[in-house]
Amino acid sequence: MNFESINLEAKFACFSDHWSPRVVAELNDYQFKLVKAEGEFVWHSHQETAEAFIVVEGTLEIEFRDGTVTLSAGELFVVPKGVEHRPVARGECKILLLEPRNVVNTGNAGGELTAKNDVWI
Amino acid sequence: MNFESINLEAKFACFSDHWSPRVVAELNDYQFKLVKAEGEFVWHSHQETAEAFIVVEGTLEIEFRDGTVTLSAGELFVVPKGVEHRPVARGECKILLLEPRNVVNTGNAGGELTAKNDVWI
Repeated sequence: MNFESINLEAKFACFSDHWSPRVVAELNDYQFKLVKAEGEFVWHSHQETAEAFIVVEGTLEIEFRDGTVTLSAGELFVVPKGVEHRPVARGECKILLLEPRNVVNTGNAGGELTAKNDVWI
Repeated sequence: MNFESINLEAKFACFSDHWSPRVVAELNDYQFKLVKAEGEFVWHSHQETAEAFIVVEGTLEIEFRDGTVTLSAGELFVVPKGVEHRPVARGECKILLLEPRNVVNTGNAGGELTAKNDVWI
């Protein structure tokens, strides 16, 4: 067994690209992923699962078709399963994501922001 | 849909007892729980699931039979399924826990530190 804690700041320091999740830990069949966000992501939904966002640094807006949630550092929000959303970061934002293994970042939308899945740091 | 983010500090300010988890959000069949810890918890294990700890403030030691993990603020650790452990906080520590719904805090051990489950704030 590995008795080392996972320091989120140290892990965030290991990469710089935006919208490209890195896996840092697994909990059963779920994965903790770190994401650096900046700018506008694509509208998408995940038909198979809800998705949890915890903002570690900066501010993240999650737009929905009928409203917006603004997340500051130390705030959590769970996007319900199947609900269309678009994350937007006006400045760089560091996010801890939690979702089941194999969830693709762009969900049903695809496109050029689709990241390789299951990339560990 | 509720477009309000969940502010962890504001939620922690709503209670003061130790070792008594409060649920703040659900992700599919998992729950995010806040715990204030101080002192020594009981040795226990969860036969059915792993359990994720994120320290928000303070320091938490998780003792295992063959080693100890020390978690500072901003650090994450996943206790594997079925592995005996004992959380210890030398001073007060604020923890964000993630585990499936219905997991009891003392696992297989029971005893007086067993908290009521599924208490939301």
